[in-house]
Amino acid sequence: MDISKIKEDFPILNQEINGHRLVYLDSAATSQKPQSVIDVLKRYYETDNANVHRGVHTLGSRATEAYELAREKVARFIGAPDAAQVVFTRGTTESLNMVAYGFARPRLTAEDEIVLTPAEHHSNLIPWQQVARVTGAKLKYIPLQEDGTISLEDAKKLIGPATKIVAIAHVSNVLGTIHPVRELADLAHEVGAVIVVDGAQSVPHMPVDVNDLDCDFLAFSGHKMCGPTGIGALYGKRKWLDEMEPTYFGGEMIDVVELYEATWKETPWKFEGGTPIIAGAVGLGAAVDYLEKIGMDAIREHDREITGYALKRLSEVEGLEIYGPAEGAERGGLVTFNLGSIHPHDVSTVLDAEGVAIRAGHHCAQPLMRILNVPATARASFYLYNTKSDVDALVDALASAKEFFQHAIV
Amino acid sequence: MDISKIKEDFPILNQEINGHRLVYLDSAATSQKPQSVIDVLKRYYETDNANVHRGVHTLGSRATEAYELAREKVARFIGAPDAAQVVFTRGTTESLNMVAYGFARPRLTAEDEIVLTPAEHHSNLIPWQQVARVTGAKLKYIPLQEDGTISLEDAKKLIGPATKIVAIAHVSNVLGTIHPVRELADLAHEVGAVIVVDGAQSVPHMPVDVNDLDCDFLAFSGHKMCGPTGIGALYGKRKWLDEMEPTYFGGEMIDVVELYEATWKETPWKFEGGTPIIAGAVGLGAAVDYLEKIGMDAIREHDREITGYALKRLSEVEGLEIYGPAEGAERGGLVTFNLGSIHPHDVSTVLDAEGVAIRAGHHCAQPLMRILNVPATARASFYLYNTKSDVDALVDALASAKEFFQHAIV
Repeated sequence: MDISKIKEDFPILNQEINGHRLVYLDSAATSQKPQSVIDVLKRYYETDNANVHRGVHTLGSRATEAYELAREKVARFIGAPDAAQVVFTRGTTESLNMVAYGFARPRLTAEDEIVLTPAEHHSNLIPWQQVARVTGAKLKYIPLQEDGTISLEDAKKLIGPATKIVAIAHVSNVLGTIHPVRELADLAHEVGAVIVVDGAQSVPHMPVDVNDLDCDFLAFSGHKMCGPTGIGALYGKRKWLDEMEPTYFGGEMIDVVELYEATWKETPWKFEGGTPIIAGAVGLGAAVDYLEKIGMDAIREHDREITGYALKRLSEVEGLEIYGPAEGAERGGLVTFNLGSIHPHDVSTVLDAEGVAIRAGHHCAQPLMRILNVPATARASFYLYNTKSDVDALVDALASAKEFFQHAIV
Repeated sequence: MDISKIKEDFPILNQEINGHRLVYLDSAATSQKPQSVIDVLKRYYETDNANVHRGVHTLGSRATEAYELAREKVARFIGAPDAAQVVFTRGTTESLNMVAYGFARPRLTAEDEIVLTPAEHHSNLIPWQQVARVTGAKLKYIPLQEDGTISLEDAKKLIGPATKIVAIAHVSNVLGTIHPVRELADLAHEVGAVIVVDGAQSVPHMPVDVNDLDCDFLAFSGHKMCGPTGIGALYGKRKWLDEMEPTYFGGEMIDVVELYEATWKETPWKFEGGTPIIAGAVGLGAAVDYLEKIGMDAIREHDREITGYALKRLSEVEGLEIYGPAEGAERGGLVTFNLGSIHPHDVSTVLDAEGVAIRAGHHCAQPLMRILNVPATARASFYLYNTKSDVDALVDALASAKEFFQHAIV
């Protein structure tokens, strides 16, 4: 993979911020879009736009074909046996809420347990809190070890006959930990539970095959994988999608509607009420094309290389604390850290003055911040368009930040 | 308003379909997009894309400003006193589901009634069926008169002390009827009920002011008003939005999250869990700019003129039955019809061969189809880019259809 050429595919990266070359290190929040995806969106609106599944006119057919072709691309991308197992949603958050409300809520009782980790993103935490609140089911947390990983021994102790749902991120958006999803899936299935995987930080960054993971549900977002904002997907095993109830209702998703009752279409259309996110889906299809052209193995290898380099360079910065698995461990493409006692927002502000965009805050993982005993952290996250020189720019900018806040370093 | 110039703003209209100039008469399903909106989307992804409300870097600030500026534009467009009263949603369907599940469901009991019309779009019907199912509340239907309108006398009889919700389309997507929303709002408020207005077919087509309507909620879609697919809005009175519960949960919408409980942000952010539909909102803001530049009064006047011309020309077609309010009555910009006993799908197919795109089907209003005693209808719907010559093309193509199916005309 010729890294320097990939950067040229992303027009937004060819700009200066505050007089410096933009160094975008916030792809875990949202990725940038290659020109090919932007062009597909533009072309869709300029030549094919129409509502789908409804019209029998030419534009309607073109739009419907484009929309359903995008579903096939996404299905193939994650190894789903059938395109009908991919539901288009607004993103990971909506996908997870659909499973919580449409699948878990009608099944769970006060006897049941939902197993999570305390490192989950709020989107894979609060829906389960809500389901627990209305069903009486209990939340159980697999404890985090010192290095931010979980132990399968602990998981085995918690996943038992009362477990109905195991919900876990494939890759932690804060620690970068890659969780042993397949092993957890086996544990869940042994006791008749289903496993729901938050793939927001894995699907964009590594080869993900739902058969290999044997997950029951997989949720992910288009905007973190070179696609547009406002589109994502939920994969589910066919039997579960057939049993799962729609969580919203309207046009498109119905079969027969009477004044006092109605019936639904089959999966996946019963979950896509209202006019779908058509251009978003088409754009996500184009993003899949782009990622496949480069190759997910190559992207994973690139992430690994950049992250390894970042861990090495950042560990040389005095006073900088890095969270998550130690150097050498398998990790997602991000590094979370704090610089002495300087508030990460202040670090981020100084970095921005040097053109370096990182994220600072609780990263939608407040319970994890409490475990780390910090109010917030800084996070640099990488994607296929980042280079080692971006990491060097980060380290140089951190030196400026240290100098700027010198009196505050503890 | 110079109509011929407006057509030039929409690149998609400058193409041939099956060897004929494209005549797009399906704007009630989805509108086309002016170049200015497409350019704003492109520019957003090429220069400003980032996640919102989270980062302190420059792109994050630009994206957040663009997103919240779009909210202000949409609020101003409908006369909302405060931008915080506009919640960004995927579209009308999601907006109506949010009110049904987040507002009505927790309040309604088996003693309560929901008042609708049998002409509602499925999106303003099935969510209420679902709320009725889980709360025991009853659905009451204001009967349709022969011409597709409702009578305020009938409404007065139905809206009483048991009424908690009146849910009605501002403009029927099948009949074109413009409902007396303000009068219904007054009736609802007299008995302490709230009125929920489906503005999908009104907000794009006429000046709509929430203060004039005195509606409690107003739902509408971006894609029907020159904006992108996958974005829409819900307006609500402040006190109701403050009381309304979020219907999905995740990042962005939270205040404090603990392992076993969480609290929410204020309106409107508590309703926007997960990464928002950022580019969609920015595109909708650009659509509002475009519509305001032309002027909603001018657009309404144009709709009225084209629709009047269409009703006149179509009433001259032998064997063609037009549904909805009679010529001369106030009507939205669409005409629904059947051509003898030819199935509307067949009519639509023949019209498409002549480059004329209309919609055929139940228009997401199956109960209304039963009242009209037809399985489906054809619908030609107009927008600011349509001209009288488009109507002429429709009438000419209908003549071809008649000839083609001559043996089938009853």
